[in-house]
Amino acid sequence: MVSDCVFCDIVAGRAPASLVYEDEVALAILDIRPVNPGHLLVIPRRHSAYLAEMDEATGMHLFMIAMRLAQALRRSGLRCAGINLFLADGEVAFQEILHVHLHVVPRFTGDAFRIAADWSAQPTRAELEANAARIRGAYASLWGDADEAKLDTQVC
Amino acid sequence: MVSDCVFCDIVAGRAPASLVYEDEVALAILDIRPVNPGHLLVIPRRHSAYLAEMDEATGMHLFMIAMRLAQALRRSGLRCAGINLFLADGEVAFQEILHVHLHVVPRFTGDAFRIAADWSAQPTRAELEANAARIRGAYASLWGDADEAKLDTQVC
Repeated sequence: MVSDCVFCDIVAGRAPASLVYEDEVALAILDIRPVNPGHLLVIPRRHSAYLAEMDEATGMHLFMIAMRLAQALRRSGLRCAGINLFLADGEVAFQEILHVHLHVVPRFTGDAFRIAADWSAQPTRAELEANAARIRGAYASLWGDADEAKLDTQVC
Repeated sequence: MVSDCVFCDIVAGRAPASLVYEDEVALAILDIRPVNPGHLLVIPRRHSAYLAEMDEATGMHLFMIAMRLAQALRRSGLRCAGINLFLADGEVAFQEILHVHLHVVPRFTGDAFRIAADWSAQPTRAELEANAARIRGAYASLWGDADEAKLDTQVC
């Protein structure tokens, strides 16, 4: 049993949550510090602190539930003219609770949610190609080359 | 044929892109206005402007590729101590190109990426429960009740 994880406590029924959806693999609850009313978290029942620890089938399932809940939010009567999906993997990426969770955030004109970055970077095509080559190389070292990957990543 | 969509032009080979990954369903390219070097976009080959227009199997596939590319970024040698996944669905949610795309953003200490919101909202449990009930109702109107959903959302 994992201790000191609030999401594991919620999954186990040891902590309160406002449940929106549940199945054998995942559940969705309302964020208690919402960006906007209706801000949801889709979380796997099984504890994984980080994305790399979670199996791909579970990740795909979380995303499917998020797609459905995005549509539900748009029909819920809550203010929702758009949706952001957001996942923070790692403390430096703003992950606060170390149990994977996918945010589903309803958005509307005039809300307070903002993203900021240094948008001034305009890499050259040569710089982009060099970075792409590094990532392709790392991908191949993890999962073989693209042709091999193709065979075992069929949409089911 | 969809015109005036830069991602469709990239898929068709009519516009340049720095390709990181491709298969029958999706491809991943470097964002030309990166938040950080290595910032990727995972996009479906088939045009869907919005999340609700894309079939679930394709969405799940995009997420699986994003999970793999997140790990590849961490091993690529580019600065990457964490990852953000981000999807903007609708102009009000900051969607700029109306062809579904999932951002995979490498993060590191001291980078310039920030999220801002009005974090002061502290809804009561009763308010959360009322919102959860509205979303559950909308979900049920779209896909039946939770028990029915369970049957057709098995992880494959």
